[in-house]
Amino acid sequence: MARSLSEVAAHVGGQIEGDQTLVIERVAGLDEAGPRDLSFLGDLRYRDAFARTRAGAVLVGAQAPSRAGLTVVRVATPHLAFARASQLLNPRRVYAPGVARTADVHPEARVDSTATVMGLVSVGQGAVIGARAVLHPGCVVGVRAEVGDDSVLHPNVTIADGCVVGRRCILHPGSVVGADGFGFALDLEKPEHVKIPQTGIARLEDDVELGACSCVDRATMGETVIGRGTKVDNLVQVAHNVRVGAHSILCSQVGISGSTVLGTGVMLGGQVGVSGHLQIGDLVKAVAQSGIAQDVEAGAVIAGAPAVDAGLWKRASLAWARVPELLKQFKKLQRRVEALEQERRR
Amino acid sequence: MARSLSEVAAHVGGQIEGDQTLVIERVAGLDEAGPRDLSFLGDLRYRDAFARTRAGAVLVGAQAPSRAGLTVVRVATPHLAFARASQLLNPRRVYAPGVARTADVHPEARVDSTATVMGLVSVGQGAVIGARAVLHPGCVVGVRAEVGDDSVLHPNVTIADGCVVGRRCILHPGSVVGADGFGFALDLEKPEHVKIPQTGIARLEDDVELGACSCVDRATMGETVIGRGTKVDNLVQVAHNVRVGAHSILCSQVGISGSTVLGTGVMLGGQVGVSGHLQIGDLVKAVAQSGIAQDVEAGAVIAGAPAVDAGLWKRASLAWARVPELLKQFKKLQRRVEALEQERRR
Amino acid sequence: MARSLSEVAAHVGGQIEGDQTLVIERVAGLDEAGPRDLSFLGDLRYRDAFARTRAGAVLVGAQAPSRAGLTVVRVATPHLAFARASQLLNPRRVYAPGVARTADVHPEARVDSTATVMGLVSVGQGAVIGARAVLHPGCVVGVRAEVGDDSVLHPNVTIADGCVVGRRCILHPGSVVGADGFGFALDLEKPEHVKIPQTGIARLEDDVELGACSCVDRATMGETVIGRGTKVDNLVQVAHNVRVGAHSILCSQVGISGSTVLGTGVMLGGQVGVSGHLQIGDLVKAVAQSGIAQDVEAGAVIAGAPAVDAGLWKRASLAWARVPELLKQFKKLQRRVEALEQERRR
Repeated sequence: MARSLSEVAAHVGGQIEGDQTLVIERVAGLDEAGPRDLSFLGDLRYRDAFARTRAGAVLVGAQAPSRAGLTVVRVATPHLAFARASQLLNPRRVYAPGVARTADVHPEARVDSTATVMGLVSVGQGAVIGARAVLHPGCVVGVRAEVGDDSVLHPNVTIADGCVVGRRCILHPGSVVGADGFGFALDLEKPEHVKIPQTGIARLEDDVELGACSCVDRATMGETVIGRGTKVDNLVQVAHNVRVGAHSILCSQVGISGSTVLGTGVMLGGQVGVSGHLQIGDLVKAVAQSGIAQDVEAGAVIAGAPAVDAGLWKRASLAWARVPELLKQFKKLQRRVEALEQERRR
Repeated sequence: MARSLSEVAAHVGGQIEGDQTLVIERVAGLDEAGPRDLSFLGDLRYRDAFARTRAGAVLVGAQAPSRAGLTVVRVATPHLAFARASQLLNPRRVYAPGVARTADVHPEARVDSTATVMGLVSVGQGAVIGARAVLHPGCVVGVRAEVGDDSVLHPNVTIADGCVVGRRCILHPGSVVGADGFGFALDLEKPEHVKIPQTGIARLEDDVELGACSCVDRATMGETVIGRGTKVDNLVQVAHNVRVGAHSILCSQVGISGSTVLGTGVMLGGQVGVSGHLQIGDLVKAVAQSGIAQDVEAGAVIAGAPAVDAGLWKRASLAWARVPELLKQFKKLQRRVEALEQERRR
Repeated sequence: MARSLSEVAAHVGGQIEGDQTLVIERVAGLDEAGPRDLSFLGDLRYRDAFARTRAGAVLVGAQAPSRAGLTVVRVATPHLAFARASQLLNPRRVYAPGVARTADVHPEARVDSTATVMGLVSVGQGAVIGARAVLHPGCVVGVRAEVGDDSVLHPNVTIADGCVVGRRCILHPGSVVGADGFGFALDLEKPEHVKIPQTGIARLEDDVELGACSCVDRATMGETVIGRGTKVDNLVQVAHNVRVGAHSILCSQVGISGSTVLGTGVMLGGQVGVSGHLQIGDLVKAVAQSGIAQDVEAGAVIAGAPAVDAGLWKRASLAWARVPELLKQFKKLQRRVEALEQERRR
C-alpha cells in the first residue's frame, strides 16, 4: 500500500529533509532497500550501510548525519518510527465478517456480527466472540470462554473453557490458554498423585501477544493473568496462578512456575526459568538462560543460575574458566609455603 | 456442588472439631475463603493466615492448633485431604455420549457408545475409543490408535497412528503422542542424514497426565512408555524409546533424550535436561535446570549442569561468585610467598 | 514387507557371509532380533550382544569378527546400512490421492491430483499442494502457502500465510511454520510495545524434517530459512530472519534468536540457546544446554553457558565442584604465609 512520504512523516511525527514528493511502498533494511523503500538508521554502528543505502528515504535520529542526495526523516526514535511506518504501510488484513460453513459454532455461543470465524473452528456453548475478532482455522474456543474485540486467533489455538482473552490480543498458532495447572497431592500409601482440580481460569488482558505453542495455565483457584500490553514469545510456559505485570517481555522458551508474580515492564531473556511463589519487581531484566530461585528487587539486572547481579555473573563466568589453572597454581604455592616452613624449622 | 461438612470429612477420613452441620460449597485458600468454603493448613508457616481466615472450616494436621470459633477437620495430611475434598466438590464434568455431527470418524473405528466425540475430531481407521472417553474438538486419533476408558483428550491433541493411551489419562491441549523419534544415520558422502524409520509406538499407561504441547515420541522399534500414574507438565519432550517409571513427576520444559530409563517416583524440576541411554534410579530428584549426563543412583538429589549432589551444588554455586575475588587474592598471596622466598635466598 | 537378504544386501551395498537364501521381515536391535530379523553391530562395545543375538543376519563393519553359524552382511557403515535397510523394509505408507469430504479447501487453492488431503484439513486461497503430498487431519495451510512434492504434514500442523515448505519435507504434529517474529519497538511515553509488522515468510528447503510443536517464525522482512536436509527435533524455536544451513541437526528444545546464521552441518544438542545476530560456522557442535552468546568459528566444539571450548568446559566443570574446598584451603594457606611473615619480622 503506497503512501506519500509526507503522510508517513506526519504519521511518525518526523521532519523531511530532502525530497518532499517521494512515494513509499515498503519498509526495508538499509542494505535491502530500493528507491521506493523507507529504511531507518537506529544505531550509528550502521553508518556504513547508511552511506551506501539505495533507500528512497531513511528515518534518522536528531544527532544523525545527513547524506548528500539522500532524503531523511528526522524523528525522536528511529526504531519506533520505523515500527509505526511499517504499520501504516502494512495494515492488518481485513476479513469478511461471518461464520464459515465448516465452522462448528454452538447455537448458544454469541459471535459478534462483525467477527470472522473461519472454517473448521469450534466455538463452545456460551462462548463470546467480540467485534472484528478473527478466528483462523483449527481454533477451539471452549465453553463460556471469551475472545475480546479485535483479537486475532491464528490457526490451531485453544482457549479452554471459561478462559478470557482481552481486546486487540494476537495469539499465534498452537498456543494454549487455560490448560490445567500442574497440581497434585501425593498419597504415599497408594501411592498416587491425587489431582487437585484446577477450577480457576487464565486471563489475557488487552493488547497481549502470545507466541506459537506457548501455554498459559488456568489457576487452581482464581486467575492466572498476563497483564496489559505484555508480549510473550513462542514455547513459553506460564504456570497456574502466575501474574505477569503489564508491558513485560517474555522471550522464547521462558518458564515461570506457579504463583510467581512479575511486575510491570519485566524482561526475561530466552530459556529463563523462574521458580514458584516468587516476587519479581518492576523493570527487572534477566539475561537468557537465567535461573531465578529467589525474589528479585525492582530494576535489578540479573544473570546465571542461580541468578545473581549480571555484572558479577559476567566477572564470575570469565573467572570460572580459569579455575582449573588456579587449582594447579594453588598446589604449587602450597608446596612453596611448605618448603619455607620446613626451612624455618631447621 | 454443595456438600455437608460431615460428608466431606468422611470422604477425606477426617474428624470434625466444631460445627457438624456446616455446608461446604467450594475449596479456597486461607486468605480467599469465606463462610461456605473449606480451606487447609498444610504448613505451620501459614499460621497467621490460619489465625485470620474467614473459612467455614479448615483441614488441619494432627499437631495443628485449634482456633476458638473456627471449625477444623483433623486429617493425616491436610494437602492431600484438600485435593480429595476438591475432587468431591468439583466432580469432573460429564458429557452426553455420542459422536458430533462435524466429527470425522472412520467407519472402521470402534467408538464406545458411552464415549463423547466432539465436533471437528478425527478418528482414524481401526482406532479404538474406550468407555466414557471424551475427545474435545480438534483432536486427531490416528489409524489403529487407542484411547482407554475414562480418558480425556483436550482440544487439538494428536495421538499418532498405532499409539496407545491408557485408562483415566488426561491429555492437555496441543499435546502429541507418537511423533517420529529423532533418528538419522549420516551418509557423509552425499552428504545426507538418512532417516531411520520409526516403527515403534508410544504408550501412556493408566492415570497418566500429559501437559499442553508436550511430546512423547514413538520408539524406533518397540515402545516409548510413560508409566502408570506419572504426571507430565507442559512443553516436555520425551524422546524415542525412553521409559519413564510409575508415579514420576516431570515439570515443565523437561527434555529426556532417547533410550533413557527413569525409575519409579522420579521428580525432575522445570527445564531439566537428561542425556540419552542413561539409567535414573527410583525416587531421584533433580532441581530445576539440572543437566543430567550420567547415570544417577536411586534416591539421589541432584542439581546443576553437569548435575552433582544438590548439597555440593549449593555450596559450589555460592563459592562460584567468589572466584573473581579469589583470583585477585591468590595473586597477592603468590607475591607474598615470592617475597619470603627472596628473603630466604639472601 | 519381507525381502530376500540378497536384495537387502544389494540395497545397502554389502557382502553376505553365510546363508544367501535368508528372508528378512524386520530390522531389530541385537537383543530383540529373531531369526527373520536383520540387526546391526555399529560399535564393538556391543560385542556381547552380538555374541548372543538370535538375529537371522547382522550388518557388520569391515573389521568386525564373524560368529560361527551367524550370517553377517559386511558394509562400510553398519548404522547407515541399517537405516537404508529399514527404509527398504518399512516403505512409507502410500495413501489414496484425493481430498476428503470434510476437508475445507479453498476453490482457488491448487491441490495436485496425486496429493492426499485428509479430513478436517484447511487449505487457504491460492495455496499450492504438490504431487504426492500428504496432509493429515487438522492441518492448516494458509493463504498462498506452498507445500512441495512428496512432503508430509502430520496432524495439526500450521503453515501460515505465504510460507513455503520444500519437497520431501516431514512436519510432525503441532509444528508451526510462519508465526510472526517477535519484534517490537518500545514507546516509553505511552508506554507500549509497538508491534513491527512481520511481512516476510518462513521457508523450509527440501528434505527438512521439523519436530512436533517446533516453531519457525516468519521474517520481519525477507525470509527465515531452514536449509536443505536439516533435521529439527521437537519443541525447537527458530526466530525471525534466522538462517540455518544445510544438513544441520537441531536437537529438542533448542532456541535460536533472531537473525542468527548457522552454517552447514551444525549440530546443536538439546536445550542449547543461541543469541541473536550471531554467525555460527560450518560443522560447529554445541553440547546440550550450551548458551552461545558470541560468534563461533567453523569446526569448533563448544559447551557451557556462556559457551567455551568443550574440553575447557569439561575441565572447568570438574574444577568447579572443588571451589568450596579451594576457598577453605586458600584461607589456611593465607594464615600459614602470615605466620611466616610475622616470624620474619621478629
